Amino acid sequence: MPPAKPKAIVLLSGGLDSSTCLAMAQEQGFAVYALSFDYGQRHQVELAASQRVARALGAAQHLILRVDLRPIGGSALTADLEVPKGREPQAMAQGVPITYVPARNTLFLSLALAWAETLQCSDIFIGVNAVDYSGYPDCRPEFIQAFERLARLATRLGAEEGTDFKIHTPLIKLSKAQIIAKGAELGLDYGLTHSCYDPTPPGLACGQCDSCLLRLKGFAEAGLKDPLPYA
Amino acid sequence: MPPAKPKAIVLLSGGLDSSTCLAMAQEQGFAVYALSFDYGQRHQVELAASQRVARALGAAQHLILRVDLRPIGGSALTADLEVPKGREPQAMAQGVPITYVPARNTLFLSLALAWAETLQCSDIFIGVNAVDYSGYPDCRPEFIQAFERLARLATRLGAEEGTDFKIHTPLIKLSKAQIIAKGAELGLDYGLTHSCYDPTPPGLACGQCDSCLLRLKGFAEAGLKDPLPYA
Repeated sequence: MPPAKPKAIVLLSGGLDSSTCLAMAQEQGFAVYALSFDYGQRHQVELAASQRVARALGAAQHLILRVDLRPIGGSALTADLEVPKGREPQAMAQGVPITYVPARNTLFLSLALAWAETLQCSDIFIGVNAVDYSGYPDCRPEFIQAFERLARLATRLGAEEGTDFKIHTPLIKLSKAQIIAKGAELGLDYGLTHSCYDPTPPGLACGQCDSCLLRLKGFAEAGLKDPLPYA
Repeated sequence: MPPAKPKAIVLLSGGLDSSTCLAMAQEQGFAVYALSFDYGQRHQVELAASQRVARALGAAQHLILRVDLRPIGGSALTADLEVPKGREPQAMAQGVPITYVPARNTLFLSLALAWAETLQCSDIFIGVNAVDYSGYPDCRPEFIQAFERLARLATRLGAEEGTDFKIHTPLIKLSKAQIIAKGAELGLDYGLTHSCYDPTPPGLACGQCDSCLLRLKGFAEAGLKDPLPYA
């Protein structure tokens, strides 16, 4: 029998980036424990995509945790603010977008850390990206490093056993086109994933929100066709 | 009209420590936004205590967020492990207790940080204590400092406006007796609070779990009588 693979937790939204991140964790030899969140996001279609991806890629386990962020407010993804459409990349790059969810990656990494302690594993993957378009403060390398430091101090594993948690960010320096090329190379079917902030009519991506526009641009630059249906 | 008080978020479990912490935040001149969590803890009586305390002390708002930690497992407070009874203080002080919830304070502070961004406030109070008995890695001053550093990097307020979040820990160096004396001085009715890990029969504190024993010892040392009914 071959030795058991080391475990890693992968934060999985069901989007293009996190799904590619999961495939890359597997490529690195990890048994993947996928973690998704039901945080009152407007489109439950995201969670369905995460389930498709976790199943298709053979995750060892897939946990969906309920964390209701709606009472906190402050984001177009959980509240009733309008999602911007048809923006140029330059406009997207100005400041923090209204789709920013306050402290989201801090919260999601905290929950991944709690599960990591229970599983006795010290590797966590998150598909953050600081290149193509960000504006999200909690996607920067300095944030990730600060979280690694916190994780060692915050846990029994870190405090008693000196475990150093590693937050893997394999996408952080890749362009969207490079991410897509990498996933395609690993055989990921992007038809399983979901990116649109505003899928209307249901089942179709709008093709106009920031997320759709960046996705389509990425496929074009990678010389590949997006298998998703668009409105 | 007097100027509006600055806002502060106070993590409130409804226990003796966090309730005293809330009273101390008010003493420092803050308008208090109390934050509690329904995380699948075995005793919903904790949440009822938090509601009594928030109301009695006049919190500006009290939010109870649902975060289901049960699927993660790993703690006697959320899973079906036995709560130790009748332990000596020396035994309690050995290592991390089984009532430790993995990464709990990291998670709770993350949610407080999310709400702080929405409220545009930069002060958060948490009633951690590192003296009488701890064993919890996420109650240490170095953990709190690491979280403050993370908060500045993790948020729009920190990244764009240079906001320095302050995590206040007014109880961190106080003994249980000193905490109780302080709360009594501020007029806090400890009959509203709840400490027992295993309240059986319902409505009565067991008097035997670590939490009850420390509480009773604290009242005795403060020369005060605990108004709670015990089994």
